[in-house]
Amino acid sequence: MQMPQPDPSVLARKMRIVERLQSVLPKSAVIHDEAETRAYECDALTAYRCPPLAAVLPSTTQEVADVLRICHQEGVPVVPRGAGTSLAGGALPTADSVILGVARMTQVLETDYDNRFIRVQTGKTNLSVTGAVEDEEFFYAPDPSSQLACAIAGNIAMNSGGAHCLKYGVTTNNLMGVTMVQMDGTIVEIGGAHLDAVGLDLLGLICGSEGQLGVVTEATLRILRKPEGARPVLMAYDSNEVAGQVVSDIIKAGILPVAIEFMDRPCIEACEAFAKAGYPMCEALLIVEVEGSDDEIREQLDLILAIAKRHNPLELREATDADEAGRIWLGRKSAFGAMGQINDYMCLDGTIPVNELPYVLRRIGEMSQEFGLGVANVFHAGDGNMHPLILFDANKPGDLELCEALGAEILKLCVDVGGCLTGEHGVGIEKRDLMWDQFDPVDLDAQMVVKDVFDPQWLLNPAKVFPLDASQTRRESGLAAE
Amino acid sequence: MQMPQPDPSVLARKMRIVERLQSVLPKSAVIHDEAETRAYECDALTAYRCPPLAAVLPSTTQEVADVLRICHQEGVPVVPRGAGTSLAGGALPTADSVILGVARMTQVLETDYDNRFIRVQTGKTNLSVTGAVEDEEFFYAPDPSSQLACAIAGNIAMNSGGAHCLKYGVTTNNLMGVTMVQMDGTIVEIGGAHLDAVGLDLLGLICGSEGQLGVVTEATLRILRKPEGARPVLMAYDSNEVAGQVVSDIIKAGILPVAIEFMDRPCIEACEAFAKAGYPMCEALLIVEVEGSDDEIREQLDLILAIAKRHNPLELREATDADEAGRIWLGRKSAFGAMGQINDYMCLDGTIPVNELPYVLRRIGEMSQEFGLGVANVFHAGDGNMHPLILFDANKPGDLELCEALGAEILKLCVDVGGCLTGEHGVGIEKRDLMWDQFDPVDLDAQMVVKDVFDPQWLLNPAKVFPLDASQTRRESGLAAE
Repeated sequence: MQMPQPDPSVLARKMRIVERLQSVLPKSAVIHDEAETRAYECDALTAYRCPPLAAVLPSTTQEVADVLRICHQEGVPVVPRGAGTSLAGGALPTADSVILGVARMTQVLETDYDNRFIRVQTGKTNLSVTGAVEDEEFFYAPDPSSQLACAIAGNIAMNSGGAHCLKYGVTTNNLMGVTMVQMDGTIVEIGGAHLDAVGLDLLGLICGSEGQLGVVTEATLRILRKPEGARPVLMAYDSNEVAGQVVSDIIKAGILPVAIEFMDRPCIEACEAFAKAGYPMCEALLIVEVEGSDDEIREQLDLILAIAKRHNPLELREATDADEAGRIWLGRKSAFGAMGQINDYMCLDGTIPVNELPYVLRRIGEMSQEFGLGVANVFHAGDGNMHPLILFDANKPGDLELCEALGAEILKLCVDVGGCLTGEHGVGIEKRDLMWDQFDPVDLDAQMVVKDVFDPQWLLNPAKVFPLDASQTRRESGLAAE
Repeated sequence: MQMPQPDPSVLARKMRIVERLQSVLPKSAVIHDEAETRAYECDALTAYRCPPLAAVLPSTTQEVADVLRICHQEGVPVVPRGAGTSLAGGALPTADSVILGVARMTQVLETDYDNRFIRVQTGKTNLSVTGAVEDEEFFYAPDPSSQLACAIAGNIAMNSGGAHCLKYGVTTNNLMGVTMVQMDGTIVEIGGAHLDAVGLDLLGLICGSEGQLGVVTEATLRILRKPEGARPVLMAYDSNEVAGQVVSDIIKAGILPVAIEFMDRPCIEACEAFAKAGYPMCEALLIVEVEGSDDEIREQLDLILAIAKRHNPLELREATDADEAGRIWLGRKSAFGAMGQINDYMCLDGTIPVNELPYVLRRIGEMSQEFGLGVANVFHAGDGNMHPLILFDANKPGDLELCEALGAEILKLCVDVGGCLTGEHGVGIEKRDLMWDQFDPVDLDAQMVVKDVFDPQWLLNPAKVFPLDASQTRRESGLAAE
């Protein structure tokens, strides 16, 4: 059998681009061997794979600017990549693109405890930012589940949250400024270590823009004082609706726990089998955590427990020491690993108004029956950020497609009740065509004209976020205008 | 003496525009009589005045869209106006412009306590939003000093804060969605009653954009549960530097009072003479307020008082009841009125990193001496949002110009120490040419290209926010491209 021969003109073009990239980067920072580029063929949405033309690993903002300038001149699409933990295909390459990875950009540039900020290169991992300031009793608040691995670059691209964002907000609430390189190589400074934006708030626009507007190379992040203590309480209920009502009542009462996590029976069973955290078997578990001094913790928990008791819990378990607190979190924190042990799964990420939780959970149960696929629910309930896990068998023909169809229906349900398609994972390629369900054409157009001005040729992270037909049309008209 | 005769072609054009506006609005909603348009000739920056060509007062989003479509077709600049309380000339007309006032758009469209939001037309005043939900023990957090008069439209345009934004954030942190009309009459929906933005975060971009991108007609606002109680403590120090250090230490300790207000001697003297609040005479007063249950208040105040005592206060006065709390706030709340009694003044609005407070206050004192104009400082110290009041005599030739020159120097100082030109009043016309001090040309260009796509002819709120030469150049090239 003969391998298909690559087109010589394509090969010559690739060689020219690689040579130009090598002229501005150290040799080890330009990866073009086919076997090596395979390391960049997918992110954590592993169902989709495509090796890029090349991958580059710059170390400085200037090197990023040099790479982008060359790619802009050559008309080569660029896919920015943090740590590649995107669950929505945010860092998936196309065959003609260059992956621009920030993995070597991990320096701390400045730490200022008086004004409570840290400035880092964006390849630094989320958890290592806290690591850099914890000796002084500070921390960086956003805490995605992938925080050990995921990079600040990706956190900014997806506006990531985490279990504790109910109290501390998501990335956009903790980001003070960025250095960003535009597609043509222009370096811009946006925001800084001071209150608020002057003129147009480009910082808010950049955060969550999924690499569509530029490559963020440095970030000024708000750091906070560590709270004196924290304590979780575990609540068991015999129905999702009742647990959903407890969440809604806590929020309505104006109490602000740092976290309200929700797990349903399929999730509880899987976690218990995997992590043996000692969870009670029931239909719905809540983990509610509060922070502060002992007195503050007592006062908040008393209010929360009073609400919990009104709804006839099967069990209420307040952690009495650090060990018990650890066990309460153990199951939740191993939920994704546990689900992976028993099934292939797809992790969704939609948000809904908090009081729609009971209705949405019931409808997901019904849809799960209709499609014949199990759905386990584990999510940040306090701010209505759901993460339904659809279970399927990757080896069974048609199961992935069925799973994707069910996923789309669930996300449309989120939009229908007044929610949105993504809380913290981003649109990526996964949800690009669902954007028509979220937006009217005129509303989506208002976003696309902004993309037009930052990247007229639509070279940055192509074919993502916006519906495929819309982004291709705009790319073509951008190229025609050149 | 003869009055100058208006150009007949200008008159004919005005008449045609007025007729077209009358075709889509009730007669009483189109103001074109010269005497009546004078009511719109300025906002709270009264040093600049210019009556508009006409003013319109639509009642619905559709009427706003009709007005903008007509003005777009006729090439008429439009100046959106909330309540006209801008201190930066944000609602100042040009002679060829139509003022689009939202004063008749005051309806509450939806209230949802379960999901903690209210949707209103944006002509509604800030305080009346809290008024609409306080029976249910909720409130709307941003609280500009002008909250009795200022409209939500202006709050969104300027991303307004207030004394309590240290804890609750500014408008952008409390705004969930908007209905906005673009200059060509297109109505777009941005954000909504759910967590976070999908795709590009246009909501963050719109908030604080000073009417440059569209006219916001409806807003979904986060409402919060009222805290159980609040208690202020008054602290007197014998130097600005020491009081600044106390602020810096409180913030660094990670305590989050709802407000830290700062007044220096010129301000204290004026307030005391005016309001007789019983303030101690000293160099610097701080009002620090905390919220929560009695226990929470006690715990936070103990930490704060311990820090305060380390810096040898002249006096520490904790409110023991509501009367005493009222007296502590009385002076601060009447500060602007008090200053107006003794002098003309210009109120500045810059932000700085909190630990630069002592240095910046000393430099302002030195600059005050150099220019021979008094400066009273009263501001939200916790988040570094300064409001120096420069005192001058409007009847003394040259004094206004001297005052403006000193104001520019103080704002440049804010930028030099890493702060910015405006915390909550906006750039308006007042600070447009100082934008060159804040931004490199390339950074400012990144903002102006965004303006280009929303308003290619630069008709919306012209000659503001961006430096005058830059915005004129872009307006001309936008017109040439039509």
